[in-house]
Amino acid sequence: MLIPQGMAYAMIAGLPPVYGLYASTIPLILYALLGTSRQLAVGPVAMVSLLTAAGVATLAEPGSDTYIALAIALALMVGIIQFLLGAFRLGFLVNFLSHPVVSGFTSAAALIIGFSQLKHLLGISLPKGGHVHEILLAAVRQIDQVHLPTFLLGAGGILVILVARRIDRRIPAPLLAVLLGILAVSILGLDQLGVRIVGEIPVGLPSLSLPALNGSVIQSLLATALAISLVSFMESIAVAKAIQSRHRVDELDPNQELIALGAANIGGAFFQSYPVTGGFSRTAVNDQAGARSGLASIISAGLILLTLLFLTPLFHNLPNAILAAVIMVAVFGLIDYKEVIHLWHTDRSDLWMLAVTFVATLALGIEEGILIGVVLSLGLVIYRTSRPHIATLGRVPGSDFYRNVERFDHLEIRPDILILRLDAQLYFANLNYCKDQIRRQVREKGPALRCLVLNAESISHIDSSAAQMLHDLIRDLRGQGLTIMMNSIIGPVRDRMAAHGLLDLIGADHIQMSVQDAVDAFDAMQGRQPLPEQYSEYASQANAL
Amino acid sequence: MLIPQGMAYAMIAGLPPVYGLYASTIPLILYALLGTSRQLAVGPVAMVSLLTAAGVATLAEPGSDTYIALAIALALMVGIIQFLLGAFRLGFLVNFLSHPVVSGFTSAAALIIGFSQLKHLLGISLPKGGHVHEILLAAVRQIDQVHLPTFLLGAGGILVILVARRIDRRIPAPLLAVLLGILAVSILGLDQLGVRIVGEIPVGLPSLSLPALNGSVIQSLLATALAISLVSFMESIAVAKAIQSRHRVDELDPNQELIALGAANIGGAFFQSYPVTGGFSRTAVNDQAGARSGLASIISAGLILLTLLFLTPLFHNLPNAILAAVIMVAVFGLIDYKEVIHLWHTDRSDLWMLAVTFVATLALGIEEGILIGVVLSLGLVIYRTSRPHIATLGRVPGSDFYRNVERFDHLEIRPDILILRLDAQLYFANLNYCKDQIRRQVREKGPALRCLVLNAESISHIDSSAAQMLHDLIRDLRGQGLTIMMNSIIGPVRDRMAAHGLLDLIGADHIQMSVQDAVDAFDAMQGRQPLPEQYSEYASQANAL
Repeated sequence: MLIPQGMAYAMIAGLPPVYGLYASTIPLILYALLGTSRQLAVGPVAMVSLLTAAGVATLAEPGSDTYIALAIALALMVGIIQFLLGAFRLGFLVNFLSHPVVSGFTSAAALIIGFSQLKHLLGISLPKGGHVHEILLAAVRQIDQVHLPTFLLGAGGILVILVARRIDRRIPAPLLAVLLGILAVSILGLDQLGVRIVGEIPVGLPSLSLPALNGSVIQSLLATALAISLVSFMESIAVAKAIQSRHRVDELDPNQELIALGAANIGGAFFQSYPVTGGFSRTAVNDQAGARSGLASIISAGLILLTLLFLTPLFHNLPNAILAAVIMVAVFGLIDYKEVIHLWHTDRSDLWMLAVTFVATLALGIEEGILIGVVLSLGLVIYRTSRPHIATLGRVPGSDFYRNVERFDHLEIRPDILILRLDAQLYFANLNYCKDQIRRQVREKGPALRCLVLNAESISHIDSSAAQMLHDLIRDLRGQGLTIMMNSIIGPVRDRMAAHGLLDLIGADHIQMSVQDAVDAFDAMQGRQPLPEQYSEYASQANAL
Repeated sequence: MLIPQGMAYAMIAGLPPVYGLYASTIPLILYALLGTSRQLAVGPVAMVSLLTAAGVATLAEPGSDTYIALAIALALMVGIIQFLLGAFRLGFLVNFLSHPVVSGFTSAAALIIGFSQLKHLLGISLPKGGHVHEILLAAVRQIDQVHLPTFLLGAGGILVILVARRIDRRIPAPLLAVLLGILAVSILGLDQLGVRIVGEIPVGLPSLSLPALNGSVIQSLLATALAISLVSFMESIAVAKAIQSRHRVDELDPNQELIALGAANIGGAFFQSYPVTGGFSRTAVNDQAGARSGLASIISAGLILLTLLFLTPLFHNLPNAILAAVIMVAVFGLIDYKEVIHLWHTDRSDLWMLAVTFVATLALGIEEGILIGVVLSLGLVIYRTSRPHIATLGRVPGSDFYRNVERFDHLEIRPDILILRLDAQLYFANLNYCKDQIRRQVREKGPALRCLVLNAESISHIDSSAAQMLHDLIRDLRGQGLTIMMNSIIGPVRDRMAAHGLLDLIGADHIQMSVQDAVDAFDAMQGRQPLPEQYSEYASQANAL
């Protein structure tokens, strides 16, 4: 199964098919020795192959010796970057890729990869590395030049895979298509009709050789290497987690994964391998072939080595159109329309993130798309925290609970006390908004207002700018004759407030354990009732911290 | 007072002094008509002058006709950008400049501006627009070429300003220095000794003329115009707010401010004005001169116009060294060492932001410095939310309060119930961290554990990725035999959870009003006590929302 797949991916990367097989040997063994996921199969994958082609094709003619040397140098660079990221424990970076961004990116990349194979399926020449709409336009313009035998073979291959999969998911459908394709070419002599075939594959193992890495290569490939390092890590970890959750195995160490992937790429680069990872598409292809992971990677690698030694002549007559069919069925299955429907019903702003990433990836390119997605989704997080939810609370009758007056009926609201809950960390980007909202509420409450209670239970952080704002605001509101009470300040915020002198400014007796305690304490200060002493031990512990 | 100041700032901008006076006329009047702050004085300021010089000097020789035309075109572009930002209500963007970033940036800019005047103070020629250390090195190398009369005059000017200010803050110290400087030159004939003076200033009002704006000018000045638009808006709004808080006036509308500043710059550009704003440094100089704001801007503008008509010959003998002295005293007063000391004692991570912005501004440049500061401070916000504080809670004996077990002694902790409080919004960048922490705590609690209570009071948001994570986690933990309870979910989070089907998954009776209710409900489910019904009306309201 690995064999047609590896050859197909090498084709995406613009490399001779045998390099896909080389990349399925040494890296597999190295990952199996160092990785934390026992099931993950490392090797050439569609996305990384596409990124390799996008990065290297600007520097050399695809398939040429220089091109091959650059692709191998790229594997070494990717390996070094991943190894360093792992060694410096930067694996957490992958957390900044949100699910909608990954989904939009994957769908767009699947389209790009799928349509990059259209030329093999139709037997025409199409612009290399062009945008999807350019490829489609060019294909439509050359519709009269489509090579019919090639197209029929390719379409037949797609049909075989889809039907076989429908009948029984355990059938290795792509392998079946490959075998049928080889038979068709051999029996009908389709190559004489102009159907392109894989041709001669060199017999023998990948040889130990030094990757050609120098200053100018590093400079021109650095951006590509960085992109591949992160994307392939993300892909690998996502696949590993998916397998993991199915097998109820726990504790995948992202940094150890990075080190293992790095070692696989570095080691592979010395044996003529281009960049590899653990792959989405491989999982998809494997699933379609009914394969269950658990096969030891080392056995896989051994089989590939045997193939390289003895079986490559068998693949001489394999038509490119069949490889294209295998790729297209696999990657189009990755288009994630279910997530679109799900987000439409549940979270429109996340749907926007998905859509923008999808469009940006198609329109601007692989690396640009993912970068825009990440920046936008982080921007949304910032924007959300910059306009936090502020709830006005009222008392649930007969209880000590206080709830949002806009969401609950029949709450008790006193004219002399305003109770606000700020639902965010307080920091420079939202302090003006919060201040303005508090001032507005104070103004709207009218002249009967005597006390402002800030329920701080959901304030998760306070920075120096916000501390200054709170300082000024408290002085100002006191100047207007208000008593300021706070309650339920969490530990880390209490520490920050202490450092800024805010606890002293507010006063220990004005900081209480709950909204009700704050209200009671205010009433006690007004002489209406004795100060609650009930939990004074804990209140003083809190104030001392 | 405006007069020497305006001339000094024009000098920073690389323009003939009279353009500083032009910029103090029409823009003042336009802002006075449209702005929301009645006290703010708009005109040329140090920072914007420096940015103008940095942007235009790469395109033309300072002081040349082309240079002047470009500076005026820049004012028009800045005006249009500010007007549009205001019209599209994007004034909130200024909130993303944190106080430490502004402080670090201002201190660095003050150093850059101050040292840019060193050549006038010493009477030598120094690299234009160089880094501070380059200027200092060059000055030290030319120490033997310092023009002594110029230096003595400049040093004398600085001394006069500092001493006069020490005696009585109401003395208009810079004006005094200017008068003494003019007298010294006129009486002693210092200009014959090689002391540079302002010289002939054209008599007459600024004339109406069309700014020379075309495609190539727009392209080459766009980055500068954007930087000036934002920096000058920030400066203006900060000054306006400072004045506002002193005068207890409320409600400054940032978008209206942008529109007014935009109009001032657009209108000014048609009367030979370069970019203006309401300024920090002006406030500093005014404070030193003992001036109190409240003088109607229109009167100021009128006085400048009169000066332009009749009084410019008086300034013929004003030495450049005195203008340099005025600038240096004013801007070095802006160096914000107090904030550094304050942050050292209160918030080290904010101190780092300040330091990085300061160093980046000095080393890389004005625009780069502020950009790096903004990106870093937003990055810190993201980083903080990506590793949220998670507290394990225990019961305060004899109460319904639950507090962090790491911060309070003698709390009651049950072996069968784990109570966690997540202090952050739950989103893609922290969901793995949160999940791992929850799993770890569950594992460490041991086999007696029967129930996990998630106190959601400080979860301010949940996105689709986190909802998916929570979904998987709840299923997984239930598979381990745990009961999952949640309490105090705030309204907006409840809405999101409902959309994702999480409320149904958890079950209405598993979502309670408080930690104590959740614990009681769990006990009731175990048959240990009746289910609390006390607040069922509000619980069902919450569940229905």
